[in-house]
Amino acid sequence: MIAVKVSEKSIRRMSHYARCLRMAKIRGEVIITSQQLATTCGISSAAVRRDLSIYGEFGKQGSGYKVDDLLMNIQSILGTTDPPSVIIVGAGSIGRGLMNSGLSGTGGYRYEAIFDSDPAKTGTSCCGKKIRSIDEIPELVKEKKEVIAVIAVSTGSGQRALDMLVDAGCSAILSFTLEPLNAPANVEVRYIEVSTELDVLTHSMRRKERA
Amino acid sequence: MIAVKVSEKSIRRMSHYARCLRMAKIRGEVIITSQQLATTCGISSAAVRRDLSIYGEFGKQGSGYKVDDLLMNIQSILGTTDPPSVIIVGAGSIGRGLMNSGLSGTGGYRYEAIFDSDPAKTGTSCCGKKIRSIDEIPELVKEKKEVIAVIAVSTGSGQRALDMLVDAGCSAILSFTLEPLNAPANVEVRYIEVSTELDVLTHSMRRKERA
Repeated sequence: MIAVKVSEKSIRRMSHYARCLRMAKIRGEVIITSQQLATTCGISSAAVRRDLSIYGEFGKQGSGYKVDDLLMNIQSILGTTDPPSVIIVGAGSIGRGLMNSGLSGTGGYRYEAIFDSDPAKTGTSCCGKKIRSIDEIPELVKEKKEVIAVIAVSTGSGQRALDMLVDAGCSAILSFTLEPLNAPANVEVRYIEVSTELDVLTHSMRRKERA
Repeated sequence: MIAVKVSEKSIRRMSHYARCLRMAKIRGEVIITSQQLATTCGISSAAVRRDLSIYGEFGKQGSGYKVDDLLMNIQSILGTTDPPSVIIVGAGSIGRGLMNSGLSGTGGYRYEAIFDSDPAKTGTSCCGKKIRSIDEIPELVKEKKEVIAVIAVSTGSGQRALDMLVDAGCSAILSFTLEPLNAPANVEVRYIEVSTELDVLTHSMRRKERA
């Protein structure tokens, strides 16, 4: 495999291809065409071929790609062949909702544990897992080595959760809290912000009305 | 106000400014500086001033911005002065989690209703609201006129949910389902994909390890 600097957009498309390939595999399909990948990923087949060609020739012109091989290659590019553990910090509505919806179909990720700081919650059960005290986070991160933490605490507690995770050695964080978090340069933080998505949709809707 | 074509990134920053301003307002602050906005939004103060100057002079050099005025102006730019209703389609873990976490602090959005197709769920309560049958969606969209629908159905049912929403007259959709959706050109669809965010984080983590 050739090492290429890849854009986030390209990584996102790879993630979509991997998801399509997993679904094809479940359906028992052995071969997939760039057209099929394109249709299920909502882009053009030329874009699919261009993306995949960057990483070398996985498919033969006109005969499609072998589902297994392509999935293995894409997972290797993404680094998700053996995906890291995922933990949830915050057993509120969102944390519990995520835990209950699970990560099946996402290529091997799973929610390893859910943590909360509230003694009224710790020890109780969520989706068959005991909600653990945040004091136990360092131990788990040490044990699992590679951990992605999902921060689902209430607004105002995000930075404290992040600091604790960083201290514990966690370097990849997905935050659902509505506040910007300060993290060291070696820690990657991504945000899922429903309210900003709503703002973008509203702005677009109103712009069309005015037009 | 000057009509300017604005990038999505700029709209996202505006959304962040609006959130910071709302928090400042709650704290009783009357004036905010570009530096304060920059710090709480995690960008440079020069970027803040550049963003705001595009829309005309809201602040005076050296004396900061009036919180109320700036918030009003930004909400007007975003089109969120009188935000549309938000409905949730799918009363599973994610739908219920969103409903329970609510939209307070997001500038007037609120979850108006939650719908499901399962007769075992409809009629039961979620966060004080009765879960309604999806058959009632057209009526609500007609009544509210402007509606953003959050699709939180299980994978495989996303397209059917979208088609029904589009038929009902909904033109703005935020989807949590892990599948690409086909929508007419006048309908805006945005996605929240936890698994893709995890892939992006994993890729970044593994790339750093290799470096």
